[in-house]
Amino acid sequence: MSLDLKSLVRTIPDYPKKGILFRDITTLIEDPQGFRESVKRISEAHADLGITHVAGIEARGFIFGAGVAIEMGVGFVPIRKRGKLPGETIGQNYVLEYGVDTIEIHANVLNSHHKVLLVDDLIATGGTAIAAIGLLRRTGAQADHAAFVIDLPDLGGADKLRSESVQIQALIDFAGH
Amino acid sequence: MSLDLKSLVRTIPDYPKKGILFRDITTLIEDPQGFRESVKRISEAHADLGITHVAGIEARGFIFGAGVAIEMGVGFVPIRKRGKLPGETIGQNYVLEYGVDTIEIHANVLNSHHKVLLVDDLIATGGTAIAAIGLLRRTGAQADHAAFVIDLPDLGGADKLRSESVQIQALIDFAGH
Repeated sequence: MSLDLKSLVRTIPDYPKKGILFRDITTLIEDPQGFRESVKRISEAHADLGITHVAGIEARGFIFGAGVAIEMGVGFVPIRKRGKLPGETIGQNYVLEYGVDTIEIHANVLNSHHKVLLVDDLIATGGTAIAAIGLLRRTGAQADHAAFVIDLPDLGGADKLRSESVQIQALIDFAGH
Repeated sequence: MSLDLKSLVRTIPDYPKKGILFRDITTLIEDPQGFRESVKRISEAHADLGITHVAGIEARGFIFGAGVAIEMGVGFVPIRKRGKLPGETIGQNYVLEYGVDTIEIHANVLNSHHKVLLVDDLIATGGTAIAAIGLLRRTGAQADHAAFVIDLPDLGGADKLRSESVQIQALIDFAGH
């Protein structure tokens, strides 16, 4: 019996601004079957790859990423906004609609012995995910796999990641955005 | 064989400001055994209570809370800073050292049929945790249990929660702060 994950995602019109259909995953994670099944599908799809760490992007990516790390029995590496990690960090800038933002990971955690699965809740234009993959690869780790609960394929982020040799899993897609 | 979780917590002096010993849980969660064992101990301690949801506080509380929700097979309810949840919310103010902050949960998720376990990484003075318990109880849900990876008992937060009839589990304590 296949659980319909898409039906558990709530769509909120005009959030955060007019004209945007916001895909809200909180209704999915509040549902015990929905949350468990999401984590299980991501874990099973990456079970035989020798993944050593899951990296999750603050803040919603922490929810799915931590679940997947527990399910897979691997370590969890948080990717945070600038200034939030207490130790020595390496950072990566990325361009937003208006301006530039930075994400960081702790230095000296990952190296060329490691193989990382990037997990986030949603991929849209892919700016953050591309920056995250770049950051992970700069540590020397292999970062060739990324999993998202939701893909908005019309916004092109998943294709951009594929062109960087990243294999993508998306559990749900909302085409036509 | 009991894993020494405390030894996996890194202490960073003078962060975020001079004189503070910051207890960094990223070294614990990067370790697969450390992360798994933390989540397992919290889950097992609350296995027979009829818990229906785990609530986790943004952002580090998402990491442990999501892991515990997956391990226990229950739903996960995010408690976020003001303005971060897309649906209708209820909020609770709490006092910081200088000023007031607000945390929010989605309205219409929890009710009197639910029993919630609050999970966060650390309890210090307890301001956020007390606000979170208050918020959860305002939904009608039972919120009588809270689990923390680290307790700083000298700062009094755990005692304050106990005086609000909350049963506390802490995996590690750093007395003498």
